[in-house]
Amino acid sequence: MRLIGFLNKFGAILNRSSADRHLIKRSMACSRFEYVKTYEQDDSILPNVWIVIRIDGKKFHKFSKTHDFDKPNDENALNVMNAAATAVMGEFRDIVLAYGQSDEYSFVFRKETAAFKRRSAKLLTYVTSLFSTSYVMQWSNWMNQPLAYAPCFDGRVVLYPSDENLRDYLSWRQADVHVNNLYNTAFWKLVLEKGLTNQEAEAKLRGTFSADKNELLFQEFGINYNNLPAMYRKGTILLRKRVTVNEKARQAIVPLHEDLISSQFWKEHTEILGKYVPGTYNSSQPLHRLVHLQIDDKMAEVKKLSESVEESC
Amino acid sequence: MRLIGFLNKFGAILNRSSADRHLIKRSMACSRFEYVKTYEQDDSILPNVWIVIRIDGKKFHKFSKTHDFDKPNDENALNVMNAAATAVMGEFRDIVLAYGQSDEYSFVFRKETAAFKRRSAKLLTYVTSLFSTSYVMQWSNWMNQPLAYAPCFDGRVVLYPSDENLRDYLSWRQADVHVNNLYNTAFWKLVLEKGLTNQEAEAKLRGTFSADKNELLFQEFGINYNNLPAMYRKGTILLRKRVTVNEKARQAIVPLHEDLISSQFWKEHTEILGKYVPGTYNSSQPLHRLVHLQIDDKMAEVKKLSESVEESC
Amino acid sequence: MRLIGFLNKFGAILNRSSADRHLIKRSMACSRFEYVKTYEQDDSILPNVWIVIRIDGKKFHKFSKTHDFDKPNDENALNVMNAAATAVMGEFRDIVLAYGQSDEYSFVFRKETAAFKRRSAKLLTYVTSLFSTSYVMQWSNWMNQPLAYAPCFDGRVVLYPSDENLRDYLSWRQADVHVNNLYNTAFWKLVLEKGLTNQEAEAKLRGTFSADKNELLFQEFGINYNNLPAMYRKGTILLRKRVTVNEKARQAIVPLHEDLISSQFWKEHTEILGKYVPGTYNSSQPLHRLVHLQIDDKMAEVKKLSESVEESC
Amino acid sequence: MRLIGFLNKFGAILNRSSADRHLIKRSMACSRFEYVKTYEQDDSILPNVWIVIRIDGKKFHKFSKTHDFDKPNDENALNVMNAAATAVMGEFRDIVLAYGQSDEYSFVFRKETAAFKRRSAKLLTYVTSLFSTSYVMQWSNWMNQPLAYAPCFDGRVVLYPSDENLRDYLSWRQADVHVNNLYNTAFWKLVLEKGLTNQEAEAKLRGTFSADKNELLFQEFGINYNNLPAMYRKGTILLRKRVTVNEKARQAIVPLHEDLISSQFWKEHTEILGKYVPGTYNSSQPLHRLVHLQIDDKMAEVKKLSESVEESC
Repeated sequence: MRLIGFLNKFGAILNRSSADRHLIKRSMACSRFEYVKTYEQDDSILPNVWIVIRIDGKKFHKFSKTHDFDKPNDENALNVMNAAATAVMGEFRDIVLAYGQSDEYSFVFRKETAAFKRRSAKLLTYVTSLFSTSYVMQWSNWMNQPLAYAPCFDGRVVLYPSDENLRDYLSWRQADVHVNNLYNTAFWKLVLEKGLTNQEAEAKLRGTFSADKNELLFQEFGINYNNLPAMYRKGTILLRKRVTVNEKARQAIVPLHEDLISSQFWKEHTEILGKYVPGTYNSSQPLHRLVHLQIDDKMAEVKKLSESVEESC
Repeated sequence: MRLIGFLNKFGAILNRSSADRHLIKRSMACSRFEYVKTYEQDDSILPNVWIVIRIDGKKFHKFSKTHDFDKPNDENALNVMNAAATAVMGEFRDIVLAYGQSDEYSFVFRKETAAFKRRSAKLLTYVTSLFSTSYVMQWSNWMNQPLAYAPCFDGRVVLYPSDENLRDYLSWRQADVHVNNLYNTAFWKLVLEKGLTNQEAEAKLRGTFSADKNELLFQEFGINYNNLPAMYRKGTILLRKRVTVNEKARQAIVPLHEDLISSQFWKEHTEILGKYVPGTYNSSQPLHRLVHLQIDDKMAEVKKLSESVEESC
Repeated sequence: MRLIGFLNKFGAILNRSSADRHLIKRSMACSRFEYVKTYEQDDSILPNVWIVIRIDGKKFHKFSKTHDFDKPNDENALNVMNAAATAVMGEFRDIVLAYGQSDEYSFVFRKETAAFKRRSAKLLTYVTSLFSTSYVMQWSNWMNQPLAYAPCFDGRVVLYPSDENLRDYLSWRQADVHVNNLYNTAFWKLVLEKGLTNQEAEAKLRGTFSADKNELLFQEFGINYNNLPAMYRKGTILLRKRVTVNEKARQAIVPLHEDLISSQFWKEHTEILGKYVPGTYNSSQPLHRLVHLQIDDKMAEVKKLSESVEESC
Repeated sequence: MRLIGFLNKFGAILNRSSADRHLIKRSMACSRFEYVKTYEQDDSILPNVWIVIRIDGKKFHKFSKTHDFDKPNDENALNVMNAAATAVMGEFRDIVLAYGQSDEYSFVFRKETAAFKRRSAKLLTYVTSLFSTSYVMQWSNWMNQPLAYAPCFDGRVVLYPSDENLRDYLSWRQADVHVNNLYNTAFWKLVLEKGLTNQEAEAKLRGTFSADKNELLFQEFGINYNNLPAMYRKGTILLRKRVTVNEKARQAIVPLHEDLISSQFWKEHTEILGKYVPGTYNSSQPLHRLVHLQIDDKMAEVKKLSESVEESC
């Protein structure tokens, strides 16, 4: 990783001509209008709290309909979300965990982060903007049809003082997946396989408990809910881990679909709440395509920088 | 425009199945973790002030280099910005004016706007996100080479209590274009046509006044600065206007490159500070491609909605 | 006033020994704990808006009962409020108007004030604290019985961008006096003079309009409401004015009981919304005791300072 | 204490006539001006953080000079501060600790407090106001000369997420006392006993370390700094404790002058950071006059309430 760091810096210097530097110095040029700059207000975030930024798709009901997402879950569409979040987490190293489900993604900055001087709007908009553009750029890696129109996401900043608060926040979002996914799974089975109308399916499920819906799926459709893909049931957790790719050790962001409500999760990934150093990814399963894509991107970037260094020598 | 409004609403109803409605009701499902929601803090903006949201490209020096932007100005790259801003202004009707130059764009919401209950983060992120995705979507309409990586924009909210403050803000940004563009024009002429190194060009321009640079351009390059394209010298103002396209009256967002520091501008476009009703666009020049593109988009949307209405009947 | 200004400055220098100056330099002494200072957050107020600070008595129902305030209005108790507010306005010259009624007082800082760098908590607490201590100090100037316990006031900051907003704010408070005072006047007449119980009086007034209550006062008690003291009906407006005392021109804060909802008020006191220069007080009536008290205080202060100057010479 | 609670409630009911209740319902009477109320902005404090409110005397150099405070410490003047802080802590039960030194006092609200819905300005102004009025009311209990003018205090709110932050905040303030008091003690000894001018004393101490000043005090004045009164060296910590007065167990606020930088302090007073239940005060020393004064006040209040209950029966 050292080489990349060096090349990044070197590239940055190459990219900045003296005209650029001049521009920087003068970009807020003096004029009698300049007083308006003083109307910008400080929005620095209190130190020593967890900073969570949550992105939500705007009108994604319509968006998912327009783009024919599979119901109740579209694996590829979820992976566009995951790939966009991976890009964000790759850019902002102080994000120690990201958690996504449905059309939302939460990014957790470590308590001590000094990124952008903890200015709230800066953190919020960089994350939201990069997630948004990455979503569009990643689309064709996962989806067959083109994007019909520009999607839009809102973002918010929420602060959590204690580790327990942070765990409860993430548990809240994961409990939400469970409740919604169980309902939606049952609903769409009734509609798509039993031919019920939306209204009939809704009526049938009204007032039922989780156990009832589990039973219904098992009795009527032979489905053991717990055997459905973990991504649908648990959402996706992104962690920065040391992985081995082509026999080389690297750092990468890996997707997990574990139960983060349990304390087991926090024991296995102690780096999140502890002194932050990425842990090691141990899994018998092959690496997810999300990991390969990000490593390919990184490699392409290194190659391009090397070339531009050579050129300028 | 009435028909579109109707179709929009109808489409919205079609798009929302009862499963969706169920989802909405329960999306913040009850659990013992739900208390964390109370940690979200109110960020409503003071009533009766101009709300300006300014977007800035992150590391666009590198971005413009990577994508070989023409120096000192790349007409097409500026139009990607303009097209993205047009998309934002088309979506948020309470934006009464947008102003762009270089890699930044400012959006002015009318004082009385109640959009998103004036919640600061909502306004900020919707604008930033839609601008960001639209930038990527519009790219290929204007640029030949593909996007090398996902661009990123930051955004900020600034409030201006009085009309004078707002005018001064916009004047500040336009004065900024002037100072920078005059410098950059001279700089790049010296580098690209006279073969000076960046350092030599910078040295030659150091300490010069506007008049000096005007003179240099005229004497050494036969250029009358005031005859250069207005978009480079003045930036781009987007206003919502009544235009005539194919002999039909329509509302559209039109790009202007006028001097907004002068009071003449505010006399001609009284709708901005007054009771907001879009004015009429009177120009001997043909409509800008930006206008045609947005009308094509609108038409395509109407057509798609009509079809889906027919299908479901 | 020049002399006082000079003496104030001179006194300040005398009062600050080198030990004090040393103290100032080191009062935030370095230690490994000092990082906690960075947890203080900026709370500067947006420029160019009217800053209103409103003080409210805490549990003044109980307080007025304990101290046997006359019902429905206690002239002396109101003057303790007025005297405390006069002290605040005397200290903070950027307060251009104060308005009091019942157990509340509003202080209006001019839009351009730079007092305490417009830091919200500083402005808020200085006003609240000085009002609070002055209330206690002024008590015995107006009331016969001693204070039974320490009173308490809360304060809030509200911002108004336009002159119209500010006028509407003040009108809101004055309309409030009218509604409450008319009701209370009728209520207490019924209780104190007709011997109705509180419940009976309340029942009698329930659902009545202003006209009804006016009529009731006139018919049953021979009272023309409009002839009651203006202070009870209109509250108290404090303005800084040039007055003539003992044939000398001075600046002083004078209490008015005018109708500030009418535009007449704003025409007469153009200094409030205009470029702030205290106007002249023209009244056939003798100056209020509040004015004499504040001038006496000022004189005492000047005298004490002169003496301390002499002593140290 | 139960009886007092009951009487408080009963008294509150007695004090609120139906006219009062009517007033409450209508105090924000409807009018076309009422929209201005919406300009008040929410300022609720993030949950689960320590809320510290620190009060500082405004221009207390001048104030202490005017009132001839003993130098470097005036025991009685410090006790006016302590008595005012005791009044504040007596009123707001969610304050678990207060710490005072010189002309400042810090109040620590427990993390979970829901007092005034955690609205920042409410908490800040109630504390500042009650401290201010209590300071004036308590003055004559401790000082011989009358108050020359109304003192004024500013206040600020600072938030600390972790227990460690809170301890460091308090340690910061206590380290500050040490540094300042050691300096001031040496300074005033040199001035008052050796006859040095302020300038000479300052010059002599410039650049010295703590050890030097300790040595100077010992060598030149025979003073062992550590034997000076703890209140001067450590400031005053107020804690709510169970005490025994006249053989009756009671709750009271007691002043301590301990070293709170050491961990010993936090082990002895575990209630502060733990689940808050007042601890027991064990001391061989007699109770401080501050405790007797507050118990007398409480008794007087109970007596008055009992009487008013009897009267109304």
